[in-house]
Amino acid sequence: MLVYPGHKLHVFDISKEAKDSLQAKGAVPYDNVAELAKASDFVVTMLPNNDIVANTYDTIIGGGGIKNQTIFIDSSTIDPNVAKAVQVKVKAAGATFVDAPVSGGVPGAKNATLTFMVGGTTDEYQAVKELLEGMGKKITHCGGYGMGQAAKVCNNMMLGISMCGLAECMNLAIRLGLDPKVFSDIVNASTGRSWASEVNNPVPGIIPTAPAASGYAGGFATGLITKDLGIASAVATSSNSPIPLGALTHQIYRTLMAKGLANKDFSVVYDFLKNAEGK
Amino acid sequence: MLVYPGHKLHVFDISKEAKDSLQAKGAVPYDNVAELAKASDFVVTMLPNNDIVANTYDTIIGGGGIKNQTIFIDSSTIDPNVAKAVQVKVKAAGATFVDAPVSGGVPGAKNATLTFMVGGTTDEYQAVKELLEGMGKKITHCGGYGMGQAAKVCNNMMLGISMCGLAECMNLAIRLGLDPKVFSDIVNASTGRSWASEVNNPVPGIIPTAPAASGYAGGFATGLITKDLGIASAVATSSNSPIPLGALTHQIYRTLMAKGLANKDFSVVYDFLKNAEGK
Amino acid sequence: MLVYPGHKLHVFDISKEAKDSLQAKGAVPYDNVAELAKASDFVVTMLPNNDIVANTYDTIIGGGGIKNQTIFIDSSTIDPNVAKAVQVKVKAAGATFVDAPVSGGVPGAKNATLTFMVGGTTDEYQAVKELLEGMGKKITHCGGYGMGQAAKVCNNMMLGISMCGLAECMNLAIRLGLDPKVFSDIVNASTGRSWASEVNNPVPGIIPTAPAASGYAGGFATGLITKDLGIASAVATSSNSPIPLGALTHQIYRTLMAKGLANKDFSVVYDFLKNAEGK
Amino acid sequence: MLVYPGHKLHVFDISKEAKDSLQAKGAVPYDNVAELAKASDFVVTMLPNNDIVANTYDTIIGGGGIKNQTIFIDSSTIDPNVAKAVQVKVKAAGATFVDAPVSGGVPGAKNATLTFMVGGTTDEYQAVKELLEGMGKKITHCGGYGMGQAAKVCNNMMLGISMCGLAECMNLAIRLGLDPKVFSDIVNASTGRSWASEVNNPVPGIIPTAPAASGYAGGFATGLITKDLGIASAVATSSNSPIPLGALTHQIYRTLMAKGLANKDFSVVYDFLKNAEGK
Repeated sequence: MLVYPGHKLHVFDISKEAKDSLQAKGAVPYDNVAELAKASDFVVTMLPNNDIVANTYDTIIGGGGIKNQTIFIDSSTIDPNVAKAVQVKVKAAGATFVDAPVSGGVPGAKNATLTFMVGGTTDEYQAVKELLEGMGKKITHCGGYGMGQAAKVCNNMMLGISMCGLAECMNLAIRLGLDPKVFSDIVNASTGRSWASEVNNPVPGIIPTAPAASGYAGGFATGLITKDLGIASAVATSSNSPIPLGALTHQIYRTLMAKGLANKDFSVVYDFLKNAEGK
Repeated sequence: MLVYPGHKLHVFDISKEAKDSLQAKGAVPYDNVAELAKASDFVVTMLPNNDIVANTYDTIIGGGGIKNQTIFIDSSTIDPNVAKAVQVKVKAAGATFVDAPVSGGVPGAKNATLTFMVGGTTDEYQAVKELLEGMGKKITHCGGYGMGQAAKVCNNMMLGISMCGLAECMNLAIRLGLDPKVFSDIVNASTGRSWASEVNNPVPGIIPTAPAASGYAGGFATGLITKDLGIASAVATSSNSPIPLGALTHQIYRTLMAKGLANKDFSVVYDFLKNAEGK
Repeated sequence: MLVYPGHKLHVFDISKEAKDSLQAKGAVPYDNVAELAKASDFVVTMLPNNDIVANTYDTIIGGGGIKNQTIFIDSSTIDPNVAKAVQVKVKAAGATFVDAPVSGGVPGAKNATLTFMVGGTTDEYQAVKELLEGMGKKITHCGGYGMGQAAKVCNNMMLGISMCGLAECMNLAIRLGLDPKVFSDIVNASTGRSWASEVNNPVPGIIPTAPAASGYAGGFATGLITKDLGIASAVATSSNSPIPLGALTHQIYRTLMAKGLANKDFSVVYDFLKNAEGK
Repeated sequence: MLVYPGHKLHVFDISKEAKDSLQAKGAVPYDNVAELAKASDFVVTMLPNNDIVANTYDTIIGGGGIKNQTIFIDSSTIDPNVAKAVQVKVKAAGATFVDAPVSGGVPGAKNATLTFMVGGTTDEYQAVKELLEGMGKKITHCGGYGMGQAAKVCNNMMLGISMCGLAECMNLAIRLGLDPKVFSDIVNASTGRSWASEVNNPVPGIIPTAPAASGYAGGFATGLITKDLGIASAVATSSNSPIPLGALTHQIYRTLMAKGLANKDFSVVYDFLKNAEGK
């Protein structure tokens, strides 16, 4: 995680390079997560998926890494049900656990403008708020355990649907003869507007700062939205919730993954849908 | 159409009641559209579908209703290609035709806050702008002939996608345990926001003025969004444009039609998707 | 159409080459469809789309090409509603019209093994049956006017859905570790079987005679199934029929069109979906 | 499981009634799965979901229920990856485990005409074949561990797609004016045919033995196809396989679940899609 003023930073990463780099900035490196946890008052974890989060906390608990006052903050993006299960285990071992997934990407991390969505009790939310404000701009209390994850996955499902839908609409508009800039302005002044249409229009040339303007580099990677939509599909299945557009958007992004576009900004779906031959 | 200050209003409607009602307000009723057109400088038509628009203009032209200076403004919502074809015929007969579909619904019509999307030359746009400003608040020039229709159909396809997607997300969020009001606030402050989430949240109780708060009465009818999505599907077919989410949204709304929900606000899709039994 | 034994063949085509080629085989070429119709007892038309069919029959009728005894057989694939409208016009002009779309492709045409789906009265069906038996193997009476077209479009929508679904299933099966040949045999002995799985499996190497075995050449072109799915979408819209899978299949094939695959067999959808990178 | 001739049957069920009923037929009841396993040469498990299968085998292993010669046959329908994980644990404890999900339903169980899809080595397949032939008619070797589950989930995904697609096509055909029996015969003689169209047409009156003929009672429950499609969605996510139609079919069946149709035959999707009002 970040080098954070006013706190002594203890760090662990499976990448030696990452640890060395943080050590060079003054952090104390550890070879073992349980030892690190034992030495810390706050532990922030950010890990790639459900299984790695569950295993890491099993390792911490099994390795005697739980102290009573420790507050564990998991900023991974995972299934809310996994977050709830880890909370139960950490609580049983005597410490505190909240889920606090984050959005805002690499630029947000660099500039401390991230958004954290926190799931836990009101007291726990208050206890982590100040710490998280050192890393992010907006710290939202979403509800009880797992609700930070639930909020993130539902918001991002909406985001994916908006982007795919906008890509279809822009492509159709252009093919019907509309000027994309003119149509973009109409949408933004009308009932079709969304964050995607206002901030990340997928047609190159509409918004100079959008990833579309630079070959879909940077931004929010197709691989990440696909992962989030996979979590959405899983929790929709486990809660018997119909998500026709969410499921289809997931499949569309999975097709993009199959075409090798994982690292492009998710607005690249416009480029995928448009007819290269102009037919 | 509306009784409009500063102009003598000539009216035709296939409904005698509608004509009588306008006559009572001072309008001059006609039994024949061609005669009405011959007597008018501006003719505004607002008709239910492609075929009726095409037939009405054939009747006007065939009935000798075209004068050189007449400007025909079609505010129906139809296929842009039909609008273009009618323009060609009216032009050939010596008059001017622009497409100017409208959004804003019955409240917009009553309060003169409608939005008109105009397709035509810049001169023609200037020529109709003042007249339309008497009926609407925003008069947008969308491009050449048919582009008013194209803009409306593309915007409304986006609107339908946003609403269906939002209904799925709200339902999923609630079933995962989120408070709908809390989640709604999160979405509106995040990347998932849209006109639908800010103005017409489909969950009863979130937005007091939204149709969801009054049994999905009023608002933008399911029957109308279904019609607009049908036009979107048709022009997507004729232009070979892939619209996966647009097409699926169309099918979802068509299913709602089959369930007898044509007259409810289109946000009723939330009520359709949620699991009444709580399973 | 085909050079047909026992009948004097009169031909028209907008392509001079096509006419010359038929003339070389003994057919009488015409420069004008109305003249050709006037000289014929049976007229078989096979044209690319709704508008060309409608215009051609307008030209025939307008050019005085209708004789009382003439039977017009339209073997184009078009919207059933257009077929019905043309029937009304031809009938009003005094002759007989049936719709008789055909399936079986170029091999079926060469070997006279085509299937004709006829819409018309029982008497009309009997009147055209013998003639069509010279060109096809199976002549089915589907019902009244337009029902030949309706049967073809509904069957082909099912075919498109089956093929896309099978492509997904084969791809998923392979990625889960199943041997494609073993899985194909299981499906064909189980509830998942279909014409597509038995005759046109999209995975190369399963069925030696299938287009997949030769780079997806030949077979039933993606461009044609896309056209048929477009007609299905149009008639679903005009009849308010929900077709969620049909509409999505249409969009998938439209995406393939956008990728330049119009001329490949429609089983190429498997190749499109599978993950080339093996990720 | 079944009372099986030539073997002494030991049984466990969480339902006391079920155990009592089997005891009345001569089976030996157990209060504990580990004890039962210790006393048996073959153990057949058939359980509702991933977690219960995993927990049951943990209980058996933890309770000392593994003997070297025991062959465990799991006939539950679960995620192939869970089956693989259980196999690894059982193997490590010294016994044999194969996955052998079953299809054929309650009638198949009563008449011993079930189909078993076996995942395991060739020797293991041979070792369980004879036993399974006492319960089923067709015992298929699908490949290595988990491949029985993979085959079942992929076949059933195809089945769900076929049924939904057929329901759409039949509804569209009827609304276009086709006689459903005539159209059904055409499809079954054409490229649109499938197991669903030949054996389980969803329109009442086409096939007298199909569930549609008796109010969609009996047959393959909507709740079960929804569960299978949920497994398909999960393995598609974990293997990054695009399944657009499979995912949409899953959502459609999930919507049917939300409408309280879980216990109806899955062909009830036709009844759900058709327009009751005839509009």
